[in-house]
Amino acid sequence: MKKLINNVDDVVEDMLDGMSLAYPEYIRLIDGFNVIVRKDAPIKGKVGLVSGGGSGHEPAHGGYVGKGMLDAAVAGEVFTSPTPDQIYEAIKAVDSGKGVLLIVKNYTGDTMNFDIAKEMAEMDGIKVEAVIVDDDVAVEDSTYTAGRRGIAGTVFVHKIAGAMAESGASLEEVKTVAESVISNVRSMGMALSSCIVPAAGKPNFTLADDEVEIGIGIHGEPGTHREKIKTADEIAEHLVNKVLEDIQISKGDKVAIMINGLAATPYMELYIINKKVHELMEDRGIKVHRTFIGEYMTSLEMAGFSVTILRLNDKLEKLLDEESDTIAFKVN
Amino acid sequence: MKKLINNVDDVVEDMLDGMSLAYPEYIRLIDGFNVIVRKDAPIKGKVGLVSGGGSGHEPAHGGYVGKGMLDAAVAGEVFTSPTPDQIYEAIKAVDSGKGVLLIVKNYTGDTMNFDIAKEMAEMDGIKVEAVIVDDDVAVEDSTYTAGRRGIAGTVFVHKIAGAMAESGASLEEVKTVAESVISNVRSMGMALSSCIVPAAGKPNFTLADDEVEIGIGIHGEPGTHREKIKTADEIAEHLVNKVLEDIQISKGDKVAIMINGLAATPYMELYIINKKVHELMEDRGIKVHRTFIGEYMTSLEMAGFSVTILRLNDKLEKLLDEESDTIAFKVN
Repeated sequence: MKKLINNVDDVVEDMLDGMSLAYPEYIRLIDGFNVIVRKDAPIKGKVGLVSGGGSGHEPAHGGYVGKGMLDAAVAGEVFTSPTPDQIYEAIKAVDSGKGVLLIVKNYTGDTMNFDIAKEMAEMDGIKVEAVIVDDDVAVEDSTYTAGRRGIAGTVFVHKIAGAMAESGASLEEVKTVAESVISNVRSMGMALSSCIVPAAGKPNFTLADDEVEIGIGIHGEPGTHREKIKTADEIAEHLVNKVLEDIQISKGDKVAIMINGLAATPYMELYIINKKVHELMEDRGIKVHRTFIGEYMTSLEMAGFSVTILRLNDKLEKLLDEESDTIAFKVN
Repeated sequence: MKKLINNVDDVVEDMLDGMSLAYPEYIRLIDGFNVIVRKDAPIKGKVGLVSGGGSGHEPAHGGYVGKGMLDAAVAGEVFTSPTPDQIYEAIKAVDSGKGVLLIVKNYTGDTMNFDIAKEMAEMDGIKVEAVIVDDDVAVEDSTYTAGRRGIAGTVFVHKIAGAMAESGASLEEVKTVAESVISNVRSMGMALSSCIVPAAGKPNFTLADDEVEIGIGIHGEPGTHREKIKTADEIAEHLVNKVLEDIQISKGDKVAIMINGLAATPYMELYIINKKVHELMEDRGIKVHRTFIGEYMTSLEMAGFSVTILRLNDKLEKLLDEESDTIAFKVN
């Protein structure tokens, strides 16, 4: 295991310390709970947005805390759900009296622990709602998931629900728009290599030198199949087709695209993938309103990428275009 | 070679196409010359800034084209200087009559070809000046370099000279501030793994499973030594000490820090490195004004990072804080 770390038991705390030291203009850390909070939270008159999950997906989720996106991000151990206590602390830290929306990726541990935290906060009289993101079309059920997995599409939920919350909307309105994003967003990924959970010290799967895994999850959960590596164009086309089989996007529709690197894949390759994705959209008469290319929802040091397509309507487009100012996602 | 590419001969063109399709709000591509130009260039009353170099360092340099930074970026083949013809085309595309500054990383091919292009443009009556960035303290002379190499510190030159140019300053003033950045910025890097030039098809060096290379260049040029991997803290301290041996930064001074991933290193590890770098600054009473963590000057799919320290004065600080709005570097 060749990693830039100190003690395997301290990776999450060291990482959060390094992040909060870098960005005091955006965030502060709740010591002892591994919760990253927007510097000026709770914000009067604004619904609080809380997300999070296991660590190892950086810059998710702390990188999305700030104006127009999240109010808090809860960091579990690597690939492990945060505990209800941690999530409860985040909810309390961001509630201004207008209620809190939890944005949860669909993994069994996360949905359970966010739900327990929700009940804990409700006993304090805090209004809490939750939405579950399950954008990954690759497989039904998976290693840690009943139903579909939540992956990079989650960032669009943060962005759009965040813009809605920033506008002063009610908890019910913010939840409704978050659900609208979820019903309009689909993703699928693939990997060229595995990743190593620090505490495990060895890869959680292996791929041959010429082999890739299609439909893989962001914890290395099995995808649809393994195959010999093909061209970037062929791989992009396969993923886009799978996404478009799952959601009706018609000629003249507008979409936002995210080409998400899983961590080790260079921008050069993500840009090459994007060329094909844009060509496929153009072939179908689908208009790309915005494209995001970068590392948004990673998987430790895994090489690979996912493609996310968000079908827009006027409301989602407007909210996507609103300003967001966070460490890892700036729209202006 | 496991890469998301199509034909090895097309990687640069495919990449630039994918980049320009993604970001029409920032850039346009000069077809046939692999030059990325700011959408609204040439800008009346503004000095034009041109940079570039071999490809394989994405998002450099096209990612820095836009408001408050570059007017054009010229992309050579992978790890190969762009030709004088390409650079000449970029100069012509951005000159508004106020002159053009070339920001060149110190590699023999780049300095030669940018210099030839400068002469070509001067024969057209365009005022052109050039600065050479050589921020890497690791080694004197190297595989492609007489003198020190230019690496991630170059991005600070883009940012600060860009802010100066955006203010309407003269070519001489923009050049002077670029030189001031160069004299105040130092970097050093290390690698955990090698990278593969697509046309070569095999790694340009190899490291053992427990081995890292300290002081490596962004093309995999040899560094100061190889050693068994140490902790993140030990590695960070070694690089920071080497940088601070080379530049006088005193108690009370302000700096900007860049923790630059070489491509395959996850944010988690970069954040862990940053924690130690900040602690080392605090130990010395050096105030960190801003921190940038991300992939700014990469090396194909290499794992590793560099640390850059920029000593600030009032003028550099003010210019660093000015708005920049580009694909890969947003300050607001």
